Amino acid sequence: MADSQKLEFYYKRLTDLCLHHGVMALMGWDMNVCMPPGGAPARAEQIRYMSLRSHELVTDPEFANVVEELSEGIDSLSEDDRISVKFTKKALDKARKLPPDFVAESAKTRALSHDAWVKARPANDFAAVKPFLEKLVEQARKRSELWGYEEHPYDALLDCYDIGARLSVVKPLLVELGEELRALMPRIAAKFEGLEELKGPFDQATQNRLCRTVAESLGFHFENGRLDVSPHPFSTTFGPNDFRITTRYNDNDFLGSLYGVMHETGHALYEMGLPEEYLTRPPLGDWMSSSIHESQSRLWENQVGRSREFAGYLCGVLEDFFPSVADLGPDTLWMHVNRVRSSLIRTEADEVTYSLHIVIRMLLEEQLIAGTLAVADLPEAWGDMYEKYLGVRSPDDKDGVMQDTHWFGGGFGYFPTYALGNLYNAMMMDTAREAIGDLPGQIERGEFTALSGWLRENVHSQGARYLAPELIRHITGKDLSAKPFVEYLKRKFA
Amino acid sequence: MADSQKLEFYYKRLTDLCLHHGVMALMGWDMNVCMPPGGAPARAEQIRYMSLRSHELVTDPEFANVVEELSEGIDSLSEDDRISVKFTKKALDKARKLPPDFVAESAKTRALSHDAWVKARPANDFAAVKPFLEKLVEQARKRSELWGYEEHPYDALLDCYDIGARLSVVKPLLVELGEELRALMPRIAAKFEGLEELKGPFDQATQNRLCRTVAESLGFHFENGRLDVSPHPFSTTFGPNDFRITTRYNDNDFLGSLYGVMHETGHALYEMGLPEEYLTRPPLGDWMSSSIHESQSRLWENQVGRSREFAGYLCGVLEDFFPSVADLGPDTLWMHVNRVRSSLIRTEADEVTYSLHIVIRMLLEEQLIAGTLAVADLPEAWGDMYEKYLGVRSPDDKDGVMQDTHWFGGGFGYFPTYALGNLYNAMMMDTAREAIGDLPGQIERGEFTALSGWLRENVHSQGARYLAPELIRHITGKDLSAKPFVEYLKRKFA
Repeated sequence: MADSQKLEFYYKRLTDLCLHHGVMALMGWDMNVCMPPGGAPARAEQIRYMSLRSHELVTDPEFANVVEELSEGIDSLSEDDRISVKFTKKALDKARKLPPDFVAESAKTRALSHDAWVKARPANDFAAVKPFLEKLVEQARKRSELWGYEEHPYDALLDCYDIGARLSVVKPLLVELGEELRALMPRIAAKFEGLEELKGPFDQATQNRLCRTVAESLGFHFENGRLDVSPHPFSTTFGPNDFRITTRYNDNDFLGSLYGVMHETGHALYEMGLPEEYLTRPPLGDWMSSSIHESQSRLWENQVGRSREFAGYLCGVLEDFFPSVADLGPDTLWMHVNRVRSSLIRTEADEVTYSLHIVIRMLLEEQLIAGTLAVADLPEAWGDMYEKYLGVRSPDDKDGVMQDTHWFGGGFGYFPTYALGNLYNAMMMDTAREAIGDLPGQIERGEFTALSGWLRENVHSQGARYLAPELIRHITGKDLSAKPFVEYLKRKFA
Repeated sequence: MADSQKLEFYYKRLTDLCLHHGVMALMGWDMNVCMPPGGAPARAEQIRYMSLRSHELVTDPEFANVVEELSEGIDSLSEDDRISVKFTKKALDKARKLPPDFVAESAKTRALSHDAWVKARPANDFAAVKPFLEKLVEQARKRSELWGYEEHPYDALLDCYDIGARLSVVKPLLVELGEELRALMPRIAAKFEGLEELKGPFDQATQNRLCRTVAESLGFHFENGRLDVSPHPFSTTFGPNDFRITTRYNDNDFLGSLYGVMHETGHALYEMGLPEEYLTRPPLGDWMSSSIHESQSRLWENQVGRSREFAGYLCGVLEDFFPSVADLGPDTLWMHVNRVRSSLIRTEADEVTYSLHIVIRMLLEEQLIAGTLAVADLPEAWGDMYEKYLGVRSPDDKDGVMQDTHWFGGGFGYFPTYALGNLYNAMMMDTAREAIGDLPGQIERGEFTALSGWLRENVHSQGARYLAPELIRHITGKDLSAKPFVEYLKRKFA
């Protein structure tokens, strides 16, 4: 086969994989948004089947040979092809280390466990999910051993979300960040003492209309997407022009659904901004770092959404939805969307304490994967960590160890990307503010196209061209550091 | 390979195919129910891809060899295995006659055409769907030539829905039925003259609650299913315990959504009653005749739903939803749900004229597939047929040739199954009435379990054991005939 033929075959298979993954994304979305309770066992079989087929597509000897050959002659390829082949070779090497039966079994376990979690969480029934979680931890440990690692078994899992990430780098960075935040916290929280809660109830249909209005103003097009309800908010993409985001509603708190939607809209804007070759030139066209993905969701949720200027814009919007809140005025609204305090629920945490929730999870994951913490002891360890880092302890597992979907879907190693996302987006915003003239004024007027255009050009359209640490250096000229984020918080809450 | 090993391999592959088709059903459902407009092109690519994979799974030489070998030694197999292998061999032979590229291209065209229809119908824009329809007719004609036929190219398409069905049998049966119905029609329609329309508007959320209540009373479990809205009502199954039905709402007519839901519930009850081996012993566990499938949907919609006894039950139910209609009383309600008159829309047609809508479609399909009618001339031919058979002519294409989804999704040859379903269910009901003591009394009291149990035992649980004509003989001891259906109508409207 000539190089051009090899590349043609190679990209055709990658396109097939993209289509395959789009279908799997639909299966996952439906499972979370639409599927009736009884459908779970059949869906788990379908997910097992489709995961196995996906593994076969990657490890198929004919494809593997072409990837090997392209990889050996990589220097003769174009830059785009080099990047693609490099990542594909890595994905192939990882896939080949996993026996097909193990891939199939793991996928099925994840689906069944997720379903058990959906049903057990409202009932606060940790016992019902414990056997699933034990199996998932065991599978994650086995995956890590099969893939191999140089320093810590957790590294093999981190690598799934940020290629090359290591605990020896991420842990000191986030633990040190945690210490700084804990030091900052009491003084900032004191400013919010005495702030009364917003007075509900807030009609859920009105919350939904508000969420849609704000998502659209940020650049989400309902012609090419949907907003639905799910047990845990998420964002997913089935292919070009089919972006799906979800949220959840609480009668007493419209800010939870709204800021959840801004977060997921940030994810969707990222995927909307990926290169057009998405379906034909993966993985260059695909995203590659979950930390960069989270930098985008948390940028719109926090750097934009929790700014004083946005509070001004939001106050105007709220007049049509919740006028009694609009009447409070931008300054008081800003206080409500920024209230810093120790709390139990990560997704609703303020910008100062949020990363502490992440540090807790990372430290627990480290132990689970190292085998030094048993799942049976996890709820207790969770409570102890919350007491240590945040001074609060959940009275139940529902708002404790069972609050997040991630572990119950086998997603160990993902959590750090949220905190890293905070660090990345603080650095990006420092650069964006310099590049865009009157960004605060634009935000106050509800004009977001200059910022989203800047992000599209500098972040989204880069696809998988750079690893996360390379990308931030490319954009800002600086290495990843917690300092810009901490400085941002200090300025904000001065 | 020993026979037992062959069978193990064989059934494993069939299970994979079942899972694969469950995923494709999800893709189709989402396309109709959830997908944003922009998602259509990517979905068409995914459908193309998945259809091709499905074709590969069937025609894969290793699997094909096993099927051939099992087929050669079929006499040594158990009865269940014999039935399964016989149908699989037939499916394999048909699949092998289609080039993969043609399979892929056809699947993609169907998806794109369906999307064009969804968008063009409200705009009454036949020109927008015409090129798609031309391509689909061409593909259907090619499929027919590739598969081969003995008498008429249309037979090869009929065979997809009812194995062995032939135009030379179906056409005289339905044309003769049509003549009988045309003769009956004026006298029956006269009884309904002067009946005023029900007075709306009927709140759509209330319609939805009513539909759910009635579906549940018939035996649909929302724990294992959903009811949604789609441009054209349908029913689909993703796997055991995941049944999805849809309807559409019209502010001025709650009977349309309600009887649509009863129809789709009938389909769902059939699939719910399939043998437990559904996922492991296909196709024996799967259904096999669309006419039998339609016999079930139209049985619940008409034989039950439009009976005088059901009108009594429904009147009681309506007190909680549309009390002003309940106040009319069972006799008047019966008149409204049975009003016989010439009309434009098939899905809303009464029991006397319904089959005429089918005859029209069958005769047009015959000509389209024979190549004697061009798509460009179809709207005119449609109007002429309606004038001849029903004495009405649609002023537009929206309620004319574009009213049904079937052709625009490539489904040529399906329509006759609705009329055949009417004939089958009239025969079934004659037998069921004898077998079940006080069936009319049960229906009046809203007790449907004896009937659904009888259908489960005699129809649903037979899976693919019998072809449709064999099944009706097995159940009733008689051959398929239009007479019981015509007699039923005569009795009903005497």
